[in-house]
Amino acid sequence: MAIIVQKFGGTSVANAEKIRRAARRVIERKQAGYQVVVVASARGHQTDELVRDALELNPNPPRREMDQLLSTGEQQTVSLFAMALEAMGCKAISFTGAQIRMLTDGVYSKAQIKSINGDFIRRELDQGRVAIVAGFQGIDMYGNVTTLGRGGSDTSAVALAAALKAEECEIFTDVDGVYTTDPRIFKQAVMLDEISYDEMLELASLGAGVMHIRSVAFGKRYNVKIRVRNSGNNNPGTIITHEVPQMEGVLVSGATIQKDMAKISLVGIPNVPGTAANVFARLAEAKVVVNDIMQTEVSPQKANIAFMVGTSDLQTAKEVAEDLKKELNCDDLFVRDDIALVSVVGVGMRSQYGVAEKMFGTLAKAKVNIDSITTSEIRISCAVGIDEVERALEAVCLAFELDKPARQRKPV
Amino acid sequence: MAIIVQKFGGTSVANAEKIRRAARRVIERKQAGYQVVVVASARGHQTDELVRDALELNPNPPRREMDQLLSTGEQQTVSLFAMALEAMGCKAISFTGAQIRMLTDGVYSKAQIKSINGDFIRRELDQGRVAIVAGFQGIDMYGNVTTLGRGGSDTSAVALAAALKAEECEIFTDVDGVYTTDPRIFKQAVMLDEISYDEMLELASLGAGVMHIRSVAFGKRYNVKIRVRNSGNNNPGTIITHEVPQMEGVLVSGATIQKDMAKISLVGIPNVPGTAANVFARLAEAKVVVNDIMQTEVSPQKANIAFMVGTSDLQTAKEVAEDLKKELNCDDLFVRDDIALVSVVGVGMRSQYGVAEKMFGTLAKAKVNIDSITTSEIRISCAVGIDEVERALEAVCLAFELDKPARQRKPV
Repeated sequence: MAIIVQKFGGTSVANAEKIRRAARRVIERKQAGYQVVVVASARGHQTDELVRDALELNPNPPRREMDQLLSTGEQQTVSLFAMALEAMGCKAISFTGAQIRMLTDGVYSKAQIKSINGDFIRRELDQGRVAIVAGFQGIDMYGNVTTLGRGGSDTSAVALAAALKAEECEIFTDVDGVYTTDPRIFKQAVMLDEISYDEMLELASLGAGVMHIRSVAFGKRYNVKIRVRNSGNNNPGTIITHEVPQMEGVLVSGATIQKDMAKISLVGIPNVPGTAANVFARLAEAKVVVNDIMQTEVSPQKANIAFMVGTSDLQTAKEVAEDLKKELNCDDLFVRDDIALVSVVGVGMRSQYGVAEKMFGTLAKAKVNIDSITTSEIRISCAVGIDEVERALEAVCLAFELDKPARQRKPV
Repeated sequence: MAIIVQKFGGTSVANAEKIRRAARRVIERKQAGYQVVVVASARGHQTDELVRDALELNPNPPRREMDQLLSTGEQQTVSLFAMALEAMGCKAISFTGAQIRMLTDGVYSKAQIKSINGDFIRRELDQGRVAIVAGFQGIDMYGNVTTLGRGGSDTSAVALAAALKAEECEIFTDVDGVYTTDPRIFKQAVMLDEISYDEMLELASLGAGVMHIRSVAFGKRYNVKIRVRNSGNNNPGTIITHEVPQMEGVLVSGATIQKDMAKISLVGIPNVPGTAANVFARLAEAKVVVNDIMQTEVSPQKANIAFMVGTSDLQTAKEVAEDLKKELNCDDLFVRDDIALVSVVGVGMRSQYGVAEKMFGTLAKAKVNIDSITTSEIRISCAVGIDEVERALEAVCLAFELDKPARQRKPV
């Protein structure tokens, strides 16, 4: 029998009425002949409340204890969810991460999944039960509770779908699916029926917010068909899947902006092998997550290295850069925290030209100055002044017709 | 190094301030040179709130799911408790029941402890940490979460003290210790410095409320010295221990009343071997907890059997009794739910006479009618009208001088 994994986020299980609504979606799938596995997050603001309780006792709580504490939120949801299903006449059983041996490494608060034992769940499914699994949590090899960090429940759901070879992993959220861009900024944004893992990865890492990057990467690696849909209606949502031929016809699938970014430039750094490696090793040591890196040679002896970091890491990154400036005897150090990124993403870029040209031309026409440019195979990002970024996004969206469904767009 | 187990109930950890206060008591013991293990309950009304959340979704929630849900309350407390200790500079680590392999049978909501693996805790203690263990919970052999039922955290604490061969198990509560009787009813009640397990068992099973009967029985079996004390002050509290010679000099240690009782009488039951066994097997099958049993022969052919049950079991017990009346062709079935029990308890009764006589005489003088009498080796209970029971308690307390410390009482 085919298996469906359904993931319900915190807002979709915030109270009894919403849990019942989610339970009805489970029963629909069950009645349609599927075996159903549910992954649930903590209810509404439960996690925030627990964090507040913790900080009241310790401004810097040990991470192990934090994970031990926060994992209770999901455990509460899954047992309540199972009770709701049973009350509706549907057999159900709940599991914590520990109970299904969701084995992770020992990195508290951002653990990575190592393996899942699907047997516990399969046994229950085969007895006609719905299995409700606590998202966001696992255990390390010593039995300590770990949590997977932001977006962890999505990752739990996709990992379970992979382990159980599920037909589909439904991610229920409070939006209808994945949009060409953020509809709060560009009102004419349209929903995508389909998007490739690679595009979704770029959009997720650019802060599109619908799904966490780790869960999409997991989906790609294990070939899990993911469907993002609204828990409040029956719209089919957006399917995230492998690149399919017709996707290439679409030049740009989506556009995003990222406001919480800053750029650090080391100017006149010695142009010798190993310098860049040294710079980024030091940043990694300080646990700074570096986004885009730009390096240019200015003379046979000197180069410039610039990189983007999230504003939450800016202070640490600046300190590391200041140390490096002294040690490497650089000419200068610049920090820009008044910039933002506007990006376009699309697998069609792989085989077609003119996207970059069109993007730069559009920004020029809109009189938006470009501070710097970075690209991947399926993405072009421009750093622009933070006050201009929304205008830049709008211009780019109109230029790439992101206000129209893909099939209605003009061929390039 | 000697180990102390300290158990803090829900009211002693209800908020951040109280958790800090409890943590300070831990640190005092640590500084006095002990290794300390803490057992904690769910904070304040957390359990009630979770029960309410559950009933909102399912008026008859599956017990497995209820245990899965309720166990989160203790898990939250222990991680918060560990954070509080760490913030005060004291190394600490929290454990769920599962993490220390607190193995129980599979009877959800009233599981019995089978074994505890003390190694996990000892390893942490030897590294200078305080171990904080979630009370009330364990796991069965399949990894399902179980709870130990009412007073379960006391049982966890005493069981851990036994497993770790602790010097003492301190039960912190909101009263100063064990009293001769309920001070809310008999204002002159005095606190006991010491009480035997057997007396405490009788008092606990009679509803004295300070400690749960299972934890006292555990303490007796494994020879754990238990100290009941107030989490809000430094009074030494009451020690529960094995009977010591001087206890025999005290005729009666305490007195109690129980209001939530009812008596069922089967009149004219066949006086043949096996009838009583049959009656109580049927009640046990229906999960009715029977307290006292009274059987009298009325003729060579007929007998009367009466028994006391808690009012929560009364409906079920009545149905069983009605079936039995038909099957056994009894003459009649009486149910009295307007009675209550007044009891006196004391190991001194074992070796001295006159307690029963004094009790009956006291009740007669107070014009309290006795419905029925049951006794154990160290207890005498009289069923009286529910409206008269408080007056009966007061008369009995004064007769046995329970308003005075044991050493000031007149010798019998």
